Amino acid sequence: MQNAPVVDIKPYVDQMIADRRHLHKRPEIGWCEFETMAYVVERLEKLGIFSLEMGRDIINVESALGRDEEAVKAAEERALQHGVSQAFLDKLHGYTGVIATWDSGRPGKTLAVRFDMDALPVMESDSDDHEPTREGFASERPGRMHACGHDGHTSVGLAVAHWVKDHQDELCGKIKILFQPAEEGVRGAAAVAASGKLDDADMFLASHVGTEAREGEVKVLRNGFLATTKFDIYFEGRSAHAGSEPEKGRSALSAACACVLAMQGIPRHGEGDSRIAIGTMVAGEGRNVVPAHAKIEMEVRGATTEVNKFMADEACRLVEGISAGYGVKPTIVKTGDAAVYECDDECVDILLDSAKCVDGLKTVVEYSTTKGSEDASMLAKRVRDCGGKAGFFIFGCNHKGHHRADFDIQDKKSLPVGLAVMVGAIARVLKK
Amino acid sequence: MQNAPVVDIKPYVDQMIADRRHLHKRPEIGWCEFETMAYVVERLEKLGIFSLEMGRDIINVESALGRDEEAVKAAEERALQHGVSQAFLDKLHGYTGVIATWDSGRPGKTLAVRFDMDALPVMESDSDDHEPTREGFASERPGRMHACGHDGHTSVGLAVAHWVKDHQDELCGKIKILFQPAEEGVRGAAAVAASGKLDDADMFLASHVGTEAREGEVKVLRNGFLATTKFDIYFEGRSAHAGSEPEKGRSALSAACACVLAMQGIPRHGEGDSRIAIGTMVAGEGRNVVPAHAKIEMEVRGATTEVNKFMADEACRLVEGISAGYGVKPTIVKTGDAAVYECDDECVDILLDSAKCVDGLKTVVEYSTTKGSEDASMLAKRVRDCGGKAGFFIFGCNHKGHHRADFDIQDKKSLPVGLAVMVGAIARVLKK
Amino acid sequence: MQNAPVVDIKPYVDQMIADRRHLHKRPEIGWCEFETMAYVVERLEKLGIFSLEMGRDIINVESALGRDEEAVKAAEERALQHGVSQAFLDKLHGYTGVIATWDSGRPGKTLAVRFDMDALPVMESDSDDHEPTREGFASERPGRMHACGHDGHTSVGLAVAHWVKDHQDELCGKIKILFQPAEEGVRGAAAVAASGKLDDADMFLASHVGTEAREGEVKVLRNGFLATTKFDIYFEGRSAHAGSEPEKGRSALSAACACVLAMQGIPRHGEGDSRIAIGTMVAGEGRNVVPAHAKIEMEVRGATTEVNKFMADEACRLVEGISAGYGVKPTIVKTGDAAVYECDDECVDILLDSAKCVDGLKTVVEYSTTKGSEDASMLAKRVRDCGGKAGFFIFGCNHKGHHRADFDIQDKKSLPVGLAVMVGAIARVLKK
Amino acid sequence: MQNAPVVDIKPYVDQMIADRRHLHKRPEIGWCEFETMAYVVERLEKLGIFSLEMGRDIINVESALGRDEEAVKAAEERALQHGVSQAFLDKLHGYTGVIATWDSGRPGKTLAVRFDMDALPVMESDSDDHEPTREGFASERPGRMHACGHDGHTSVGLAVAHWVKDHQDELCGKIKILFQPAEEGVRGAAAVAASGKLDDADMFLASHVGTEAREGEVKVLRNGFLATTKFDIYFEGRSAHAGSEPEKGRSALSAACACVLAMQGIPRHGEGDSRIAIGTMVAGEGRNVVPAHAKIEMEVRGATTEVNKFMADEACRLVEGISAGYGVKPTIVKTGDAAVYECDDECVDILLDSAKCVDGLKTVVEYSTTKGSEDASMLAKRVRDCGGKAGFFIFGCNHKGHHRADFDIQDKKSLPVGLAVMVGAIARVLKK
Repeated sequence: MQNAPVVDIKPYVDQMIADRRHLHKRPEIGWCEFETMAYVVERLEKLGIFSLEMGRDIINVESALGRDEEAVKAAEERALQHGVSQAFLDKLHGYTGVIATWDSGRPGKTLAVRFDMDALPVMESDSDDHEPTREGFASERPGRMHACGHDGHTSVGLAVAHWVKDHQDELCGKIKILFQPAEEGVRGAAAVAASGKLDDADMFLASHVGTEAREGEVKVLRNGFLATTKFDIYFEGRSAHAGSEPEKGRSALSAACACVLAMQGIPRHGEGDSRIAIGTMVAGEGRNVVPAHAKIEMEVRGATTEVNKFMADEACRLVEGISAGYGVKPTIVKTGDAAVYECDDECVDILLDSAKCVDGLKTVVEYSTTKGSEDASMLAKRVRDCGGKAGFFIFGCNHKGHHRADFDIQDKKSLPVGLAVMVGAIARVLKK
Repeated sequence: MQNAPVVDIKPYVDQMIADRRHLHKRPEIGWCEFETMAYVVERLEKLGIFSLEMGRDIINVESALGRDEEAVKAAEERALQHGVSQAFLDKLHGYTGVIATWDSGRPGKTLAVRFDMDALPVMESDSDDHEPTREGFASERPGRMHACGHDGHTSVGLAVAHWVKDHQDELCGKIKILFQPAEEGVRGAAAVAASGKLDDADMFLASHVGTEAREGEVKVLRNGFLATTKFDIYFEGRSAHAGSEPEKGRSALSAACACVLAMQGIPRHGEGDSRIAIGTMVAGEGRNVVPAHAKIEMEVRGATTEVNKFMADEACRLVEGISAGYGVKPTIVKTGDAAVYECDDECVDILLDSAKCVDGLKTVVEYSTTKGSEDASMLAKRVRDCGGKAGFFIFGCNHKGHHRADFDIQDKKSLPVGLAVMVGAIARVLKK
Repeated sequence: MQNAPVVDIKPYVDQMIADRRHLHKRPEIGWCEFETMAYVVERLEKLGIFSLEMGRDIINVESALGRDEEAVKAAEERALQHGVSQAFLDKLHGYTGVIATWDSGRPGKTLAVRFDMDALPVMESDSDDHEPTREGFASERPGRMHACGHDGHTSVGLAVAHWVKDHQDELCGKIKILFQPAEEGVRGAAAVAASGKLDDADMFLASHVGTEAREGEVKVLRNGFLATTKFDIYFEGRSAHAGSEPEKGRSALSAACACVLAMQGIPRHGEGDSRIAIGTMVAGEGRNVVPAHAKIEMEVRGATTEVNKFMADEACRLVEGISAGYGVKPTIVKTGDAAVYECDDECVDILLDSAKCVDGLKTVVEYSTTKGSEDASMLAKRVRDCGGKAGFFIFGCNHKGHHRADFDIQDKKSLPVGLAVMVGAIARVLKK
Repeated sequence: MQNAPVVDIKPYVDQMIADRRHLHKRPEIGWCEFETMAYVVERLEKLGIFSLEMGRDIINVESALGRDEEAVKAAEERALQHGVSQAFLDKLHGYTGVIATWDSGRPGKTLAVRFDMDALPVMESDSDDHEPTREGFASERPGRMHACGHDGHTSVGLAVAHWVKDHQDELCGKIKILFQPAEEGVRGAAAVAASGKLDDADMFLASHVGTEAREGEVKVLRNGFLATTKFDIYFEGRSAHAGSEPEKGRSALSAACACVLAMQGIPRHGEGDSRIAIGTMVAGEGRNVVPAHAKIEMEVRGATTEVNKFMADEACRLVEGISAGYGVKPTIVKTGDAAVYECDDECVDILLDSAKCVDGLKTVVEYSTTKGSEDASMLAKRVRDCGGKAGFFIFGCNHKGHHRADFDIQDKKSLPVGLAVMVGAIARVLKK
């Protein structure tokens, strides 16, 4: 790859760090990112070159997984109290997420890049060992925390937008910058994908901070993550006094237990690794009452999208059949969905090339992984199904573990790397 | 009850004992009583007063439970070799059982009495302590034995027929003497009941030797036995190599195991005692093959016919649903069915009165029981559903336990009592 | 029974109704009856003839089932705020219950009578159809209600004490009046029984309002209630990420589910009715985490104390074994225990005789029942094991169902009957 | 690798084919190869250069898996009738297998090579499409067949011995030729390994005909097969009448069913693929008897020996614990055991080099596989644990599937290739 563009991201770093720390103080969980949205949209509008589509306009409502209407209402309420305007909320129709599109007017590729915005229900560490606490930008909301670095992702996205504005004369084609809701629980991407808003993308790129990369490392994905589907399953039986007329009851708890044992016994798959996890169960109303209600939270995974589908299909069939056997009515709600992330050679090459031009990195390698899941895979799959290509990379930080109270990304060291690799890739794809 | 008829059964005892010993040597299991039938029918025909209906004419084929066509064919073959004519077998169309009807021509009640004919797959004791062995009338067929006294019942039935002939001038109304197949496993009565051949009976009486009565005792049933239903359940899954492509299999064994645990968990019933027994399972083809076939033999019981029905219905729904969950096809075959035996006051009184007139008895009492099952209950229920009345009694012997290799009834002591009580009851019901 | 004493309970009725209504406004759940205790003890002390033993002095701490230390602490705190003195609480050492003993000094029987004091976690109806609401003595504590009539029982107990004082010259022997904590959940009686404080009783009597008796009815128990044992079972497994290293986890949820199915499959018992109810399960920490904790609330019952013991023993063995199989540590906590209530002829006769002397009753009968459980059975069993005799009766009211928001006892009609029967019985047992 | 020895196997082919066809007519299943042993030993003795150790001398009896004493006795009996001498059988002490050792007396490596001898319980095809049938050397024993090519392996082993004799002057070091019993069900190798007889080997080589190689192909293993352990599990409960006293029984069937469901739910392993198969269950004595006995046949597999061990350990712990829960006594019998076959570079290189020198092969490649299991892995593991190295190859034939009635190896085409590769490897390892 000759004439690799030289990109200078220094002008964007201070603002990016400031953005990240602003967002870190105001974490919002998935589907509830209203203040984050207001912050992002205000910044994008100020740049003046992007056309914005947002809220329900970029969400296929039927594919919006794991969205709790009550939590959304409460989040809107709180956003109002924190200065977000009713007019802005009205534009969203209850849904978060925004796509900022800039069209150079010149022929070229359409490139989509994606950044996620949501936080987690984690109580942030108040130890002085923890940078956000020590430096005064820890979460202001007890029990909510950016414990997976999406605050950093959003800040990188804003810096990318800024860079695009400053370099518009050097670029051709079109760029779509997606700020996605509800990545945690792999809930949000499916709904954006189903909206069709990225179907015209020739290429799709995304990234994550941390995970399997340490400080000074960039790893470009070849093939990765386990495909996964999450389900909440509700069982509705019939109550009865367990002492005097047990025969009149239909135990939702019993049906749920039988389903648990049966689902865990779904056969291994000859074509690749699989997982099934029944994470929680809550069932019953009282010691001496036949339990009329039970709920389980579960997930399946697969080394391929097909293996994952096999697991999900088997689980659903078992639940339907066994519940019928117990005379209990099951309701299966899909609350999350992610595919295997399959990358194209072209994207891998571009990202490797871009990363190799970043100063000070110790390691730039290709990698494959079967750890964890990432719902950008749903967008990558959609783009590839429409004929486009997809890529993904991770940029390192010396974190202590994601989703923990003491998770931190050392933003000044990590975010510039993420920005540089992404901007370098954009420059390569959209250079005139 | 005044003017109770005096009955003299002495003239019939020697022949009855000889009959019992003849039959004891030639035991035939349920639905296979072809030689027994030939013996019974020949004797009934000789009496010259009965009109006979037999074989498929008194059997509702769809209600013939637990009948093994191959075993029946083999039994027919063996009967031919032992001198039963092809012409006789042709009359039966593969089904055993006969109803001998005598109509006095005089107005009166229609009384049905029932005697069962089948033996068990038990190897008879060859100890000299065992009367049949010592006196030379033990089973000639290894692995087959009259180990529940039905040989005695049949002999009493023949003696009853003889007595009726000798006393026809003293009787009015009509009598129907049923020699029933396949009581063991409660398989035969349902088919005779469903034939409708006893629907015109005003009264139905039956009896059993032994069980809870010892020598010198007659006990008249008030209410008794557990209702029960027997099922064979076949599961058909799909075979696959368990190592290379386990996901392609559907384990019939797994489905069967899940059904077993679920069925044993059917709730207790507030209205009375219940039982569930999964007695046997045979499943699978090889260690490393997903099992395509499984079979279980099971039964449910209930203190009332309703409780038994609840158990059977729950079991079937669980099997259907759970199998569907496992993607396995179940086939549920009912192989036995018995109701609770509910007796009417009138019958209880007649039987008690009859028994009290028998010389030499130590004890004549009413009793109720929840031990065991008896398919005469299906005939009693049918007669009662049609407006008739039903009764039952047991007459004692000092047996060592039914269905055992050393079961014996001490025929000379026990059978005359059974005959006397039954004939006394007939005399009371049909006296002019 | 000649010379049956005539008892006049009219002088005690007004105070009894007032007491009941006072207590009804201040319901306290089991083991938390501190205000109730203060009220009862003050009244008993005023009577001046009883020696009182209370709190930990009459409770075998190890047998105090289902007692929540935190709830007790909160209740003490609230009692202090409502005027109960610290000195009084100090006497109790955290335990409720009082035995008031009066010794006539004359030879005679020792009679123990028992009244329970606890309320339920039920929100009382605010409908004007509900007498306590209409007449202004409904619960002042949202979510707490005397919805089983124990407020009435306590009031009857106080009236009994008063009557004893007024009639001390006519009585011989000794009386012990027990005000028992925590009957709901059959938690408190076992601890009083194990204290040995009633071991010297020659006779033990108890009673209940409502249940199977309507207004105008008194039913004297012959034999009754199902024996029952309640368990909370905690499972402790080992957490692990369900996606990346599921093999390192030990699922408490899976172990709990397997235990549920196995326990429900405990065989029926040939000697009598049994029950098993798994009422609730709460398990797991998150969807994709191997569940480290699970808890179930359950109970077993039996038509005899032996059948109940069989059920409890089987359940515990299954839980221990299956948990070991899953590598999970179970902790089984007994939270309630009641026996079958077996009554002696002498007590039945005395209570029937006493009731027949009460004016205005429509029905006075003996009865047996297998509905519900009553932990006075534990005291009755203890007294009988020590050579004494036991009796029990119910006195009616037209309630709409126990443990309901609209449960009411129409105190002016029901309580005088309860008092009259009890006082009549005392008079018969202790008359000079 | 310079100066690769040129080997000429032509002189041995005719006898090898004749041997294979002789053995094919007289198939013997595992642990029963007495006639095969007599044939092999006679031939080895005639060669005159080998010292032989055989029968119990090379078998660690405690590690002899899946050996049925009754079947062995019957096989000895049959061998006697077919001309095997009692003296020969006496030398074996009931165990099959022989190691033929030749020591050159010159310094050099000790090389062990292994050939298996057992057949399968398969009925051979009588179709003329099937070469053994068409050419008259099909199995003379209905229900027994060399359906996996071990007859060919044994013949190659004899030809190798012959070649060694003819080339002794050109060789140094020592060779141990093992004819192993009971490879099917991975039963025999563990016992030979545990005997320690190959502990001195510097290198261990084995091979198989067919499987994933077609005619003209040789594939040299890098890493392969799933580790596997086979278990038969016996459950002993307690019998009772299921109707009258179900509480006295301990259902072995129920325990087995609970174990099946639990074992199928053993978690997936994060370090690699696993399998569990419950292939068969036979349980119970009669429909209305609490089942006192149950047996299941099962196996686990793992992508690594550690994963397999995890599966086996979990399965055993579940069975022990759950059975204890049910009050049932389990007996777990290991009937087969195989590790993952890990090959050393040196062996891979030697085998590839040898194969590349064989005329007429289309394909010579390295391969890895996770299909099937091969108990030579247990010998390879033992040798490697003792410091030696191991290799394995497959040589092709156009078979229709192993373990089938129509399995055939086209001996004239396949066996010379197997012989040539093995002899070439021996020449390379032991050349002076």
